[in-house]
Amino acid sequence: MAQELFLYETLCEQLAARIRRGGFAPGERLPSVRVLSKTFGVSVNTTIQSLHKLEMDGYIEVRERSGAYVREQLPAIGLSANLSHFPVLPVEVSLSDEILHYMEPYALSQALHLGIALPDASLMPVEKVMRLWRDASRRHTRTLWDYSHPNGLPLLTRQLALRSMGHEVAIADNDILVTNGCMEAIELALRAVTRPGDVVAVESPTYYGSLLALEVLGRRALEVPTHYRDGICLYSLEQAFRRGQVKACIVSCNVQNPLGYVMSTERKRRLVQLSSQYQVPLIENDIWGDTAYGGDTPPAKAFDHSGMVIYCNSFSKSLMPGLRLGWVAGGRFHDRLRELKQISSITTAAGPQLVMARFLESGGYAQHLVQLRAALHRQVGEALELVRQAFPPGTWVHPPEGGCVLWVRLPEHRDSRKLFQQALDDGIHIFPGSVFSVGPRHVDFMRLNVGSALTPEVREKIRRLGGLAAELQ
Amino acid sequence: MAQELFLYETLCEQLAARIRRGGFAPGERLPSVRVLSKTFGVSVNTTIQSLHKLEMDGYIEVRERSGAYVREQLPAIGLSANLSHFPVLPVEVSLSDEILHYMEPYALSQALHLGIALPDASLMPVEKVMRLWRDASRRHTRTLWDYSHPNGLPLLTRQLALRSMGHEVAIADNDILVTNGCMEAIELALRAVTRPGDVVAVESPTYYGSLLALEVLGRRALEVPTHYRDGICLYSLEQAFRRGQVKACIVSCNVQNPLGYVMSTERKRRLVQLSSQYQVPLIENDIWGDTAYGGDTPPAKAFDHSGMVIYCNSFSKSLMPGLRLGWVAGGRFHDRLRELKQISSITTAAGPQLVMARFLESGGYAQHLVQLRAALHRQVGEALELVRQAFPPGTWVHPPEGGCVLWVRLPEHRDSRKLFQQALDDGIHIFPGSVFSVGPRHVDFMRLNVGSALTPEVREKIRRLGGLAAELQ
Repeated sequence: MAQELFLYETLCEQLAARIRRGGFAPGERLPSVRVLSKTFGVSVNTTIQSLHKLEMDGYIEVRERSGAYVREQLPAIGLSANLSHFPVLPVEVSLSDEILHYMEPYALSQALHLGIALPDASLMPVEKVMRLWRDASRRHTRTLWDYSHPNGLPLLTRQLALRSMGHEVAIADNDILVTNGCMEAIELALRAVTRPGDVVAVESPTYYGSLLALEVLGRRALEVPTHYRDGICLYSLEQAFRRGQVKACIVSCNVQNPLGYVMSTERKRRLVQLSSQYQVPLIENDIWGDTAYGGDTPPAKAFDHSGMVIYCNSFSKSLMPGLRLGWVAGGRFHDRLRELKQISSITTAAGPQLVMARFLESGGYAQHLVQLRAALHRQVGEALELVRQAFPPGTWVHPPEGGCVLWVRLPEHRDSRKLFQQALDDGIHIFPGSVFSVGPRHVDFMRLNVGSALTPEVREKIRRLGGLAAELQ
Repeated sequence: MAQELFLYETLCEQLAARIRRGGFAPGERLPSVRVLSKTFGVSVNTTIQSLHKLEMDGYIEVRERSGAYVREQLPAIGLSANLSHFPVLPVEVSLSDEILHYMEPYALSQALHLGIALPDASLMPVEKVMRLWRDASRRHTRTLWDYSHPNGLPLLTRQLALRSMGHEVAIADNDILVTNGCMEAIELALRAVTRPGDVVAVESPTYYGSLLALEVLGRRALEVPTHYRDGICLYSLEQAFRRGQVKACIVSCNVQNPLGYVMSTERKRRLVQLSSQYQVPLIENDIWGDTAYGGDTPPAKAFDHSGMVIYCNSFSKSLMPGLRLGWVAGGRFHDRLRELKQISSITTAAGPQLVMARFLESGGYAQHLVQLRAALHRQVGEALELVRQAFPPGTWVHPPEGGCVLWVRLPEHRDSRKLFQQALDDGIHIFPGSVFSVGPRHVDFMRLNVGSALTPEVREKIRRLGGLAAELQ
């Protein structure tokens, strides 16, 4: 194979080969990180990355406060070898046909929707918001009627800025631009800092919407290995930055979709530092951040001393997708973002802005988040248990730290794209893992939305899905 | 000059030279179109285009049902020669700095806004719409809350389709995609049918928003001469199509901005025929169509038998800009438009769609249009008289057939960009003509929005503007 390997990948291959040869027996505990580093003459960081990869590839199991143990059942060789390599070269994105195919069933009203990631409206303060909606039509008629300021309503930008008040680097009212949801924010950011043909670094796996945006805008993607607990591999990312080919990087540090991790403060800080050091703008998608079970957690933007982070967010996941209300804090790129926004959609509708400004101001949103996080945490925990019971042995699933999706790996590299079709025939809509990366990766994963209450009917469907997975060839 | 001239331009130059030499005296009636055609050995069409251009260049005056007469005062030579040539070559668009500079004062609350084109809210059924807004929050809570169908709410697309029922070619519900205003529709259309570097034909003058979209998307513009009464020159357009370089064409057939004409049915039909014959998609911007004083008038889309017209519209001018509600009927390009929409903003907010669906269904919108058209017609007529009184002799202004803007030519090639600054110092915001084309054309024109009631204060300001124009060097 002509592909260049990162150092950690080489080490990972050596360890895997040793395990296969019986150099480490099933169930045996591997030497400590310190010992391995010394043995192989690499840094502690590289060793940790190697262990992460070995774990994801199914060779070892990491037990909290105990160490890394060789798994009893090793992964099949053929597929694993294909899946374990990340390209060092950027690639054109061409996923839209596949993704739109998998999204199509969302319009089916009868299906059980485990596909699109979204908490159910029953978890939301619908009546409160509707009262604010009516109120706006009485008290702010003129504001509702007209084009609003291109930045957004000052009432709202003030409230959004206030939310970052406790951060190391706070966002000012004037740094904010209100958008039609988070996708418009991300697209504006990409257009502001990159040109057609440019390379953008992305997590792998990552939210398919980011990949689609790259495809439509003709930007190429460089996939960076991303760990389900620690996030994007900073070592690989720095290598890519150092080569100087990457013009921007899209990341999620809080409740990443689909993995559900929250990056440590130290790693967020390091990420921003890399962005600043190599002058590569960071496009931060924080759409799920408000659903972190542990409560408010700072985004990378909170450590952005040099204005290189373009922070994108919306209320579509934490409150109401129908508002279509997002926002972007563009740091040093704000003026360009504003120009692009004025040109492509002039301004954002005032109605949703008024509603949200009032909801934030009244403290209603903060109160809602406390309840939402608790509800999602409980619900996702139950769903996780159910998946563990209902799916075939060898299925892997890790508790997320927020949101309402589970990233599930089928055993023995079974193909989730086949499961998609069989599930659909049974009225269940899931998202296969393949759409979360550019290459043919993650095909044995799937993303399950468990944002709806686990009624007996939903439980039955998830059991049925597990049964189908067990029967899958 | 290395620029290639069209046949009609050559003829126009010959006639202009003859007028300058005294071959036709001031006040003299020119020979008929038929006689001129025979004399110069060109088609009737070419002669008519030449006369249009001579008229726009200030050499002749066309009197209804009487003929073309040489003007008493001929235009200055230097500037006219520069202005009268249209490039045969497409050009990169680079207008955004200039346009954003001229838009900036819109945010000044104290200024008199003759810049942005918009009928005043006092002409609109604000209370009726606000009642529908409140109603939607009670009766359609769930619809408001969620992502809606990517095409838009069926309730609305049904009503939009019904509006074309009487047309030769009607639009079906499924052909429609709801957007965030008309600009999103136009941008989606451009992205669907062209690529970076492609050439797009535009009217000259045309709405600056279309030019900005070309700039941001990296498409080049080919300006096509456009007559203030007849619209885009079909002869020039066909030449451009024939050369095979044009990948799309943006046009307005009804109440074009800034010229205000309504194209004849015959010319609309011919335009669509050209588009079909040369397989060049037509992006039709019909945002002002509903304000035609003469009542409902079919767009080019009404004659689109082959699906080559991408029809864009919104309710921002005819009702409420704050709705941010537009739509596009993409003909054979619908599926691609829908994909692009799903990627860039997922769906359009349901709230405004519900409000508008109900307003259309109840007949309230049709009733509103009758009143709006009458009010605008009256108001624009009064403003036109005022401009004729208040501005210096030699000022040219033609009654538009709809909408609320006047396209005013200052005498003796005075530069409206200077007037912009002087007017702004007096608290009056206007739009100079230069932003309505890519090249340095139309600099002696300006666009005046007269969408607000002509209160004594507004009248006073317009008189003041006329005074400034008279003093302009």
